[in-house]
Amino acid sequence: MPQDPPLYFRLHVFVCTNRRPDGHRRGSCAAGGSERLRDYLKSRARELGVEGVRINSAGCLDRCELGPVMVVYPEGVWYAVHTPADIDEILETHLVKGGRVGRLMLGPGDQPVLTA
Amino acid sequence: MPQDPPLYFRLHVFVCTNRRPDGHRRGSCAAGGSERLRDYLKSRARELGVEGVRINSAGCLDRCELGPVMVVYPEGVWYAVHTPADIDEILETHLVKGGRVGRLMLGPGDQPVLTA
Repeated sequence: MPQDPPLYFRLHVFVCTNRRPDGHRRGSCAAGGSERLRDYLKSRARELGVEGVRINSAGCLDRCELGPVMVVYPEGVWYAVHTPADIDEILETHLVKGGRVGRLMLGPGDQPVLTA
Repeated sequence: MPQDPPLYFRLHVFVCTNRRPDGHRRGSCAAGGSERLRDYLKSRARELGVEGVRINSAGCLDRCELGPVMVVYPEGVWYAVHTPADIDEILETHLVKGGRVGRLMLGPGDQPVLTA
């Protein structure tokens, strides 16, 4: 089978911007402000000149109860984000420096990894 | 730094469904029929009972000239898809069996890897 090409984007971030009707039992990321947070992330990444990172909107990522959520590939690390300060920390710690923001990371069981 | 949790989805597929106005010089994946191809992929994956695979829509993935395009993570393999037969082949060969469909894969230079 052909060898996989090098990654086209060093990091590829998908922010859920799915919107459900108000009052839906699962909620939705857009109802939690994800569009504004995505715009802030895009804008700050551009201002900082972060290279090799693509930030995209995505449809429902099916972790709505924890939203707004985003996932960073290729590592497949998920975050729940609620404020511009959360975005700043992920941007600086993960997207620029390659670290992780433990307090915002989601574990496999739909629960935060750390609740510090 | 905290260890990365196991992947939440074994394979996470993002199909670009961005739409630009007709006549835009870069074209767009939706203008090339990506929404219909995404629907077909979702429907066939469900019918086949493929496990651990999430199929999402995404905003502009910035490889418009080759679209409709999709990317499969965590491996970061990109495909250009034009027909339901293309979707069937990616579904069976890559998403089920873990192989690659060389004739549809995109290389790093915005060109198909193989043009067989």
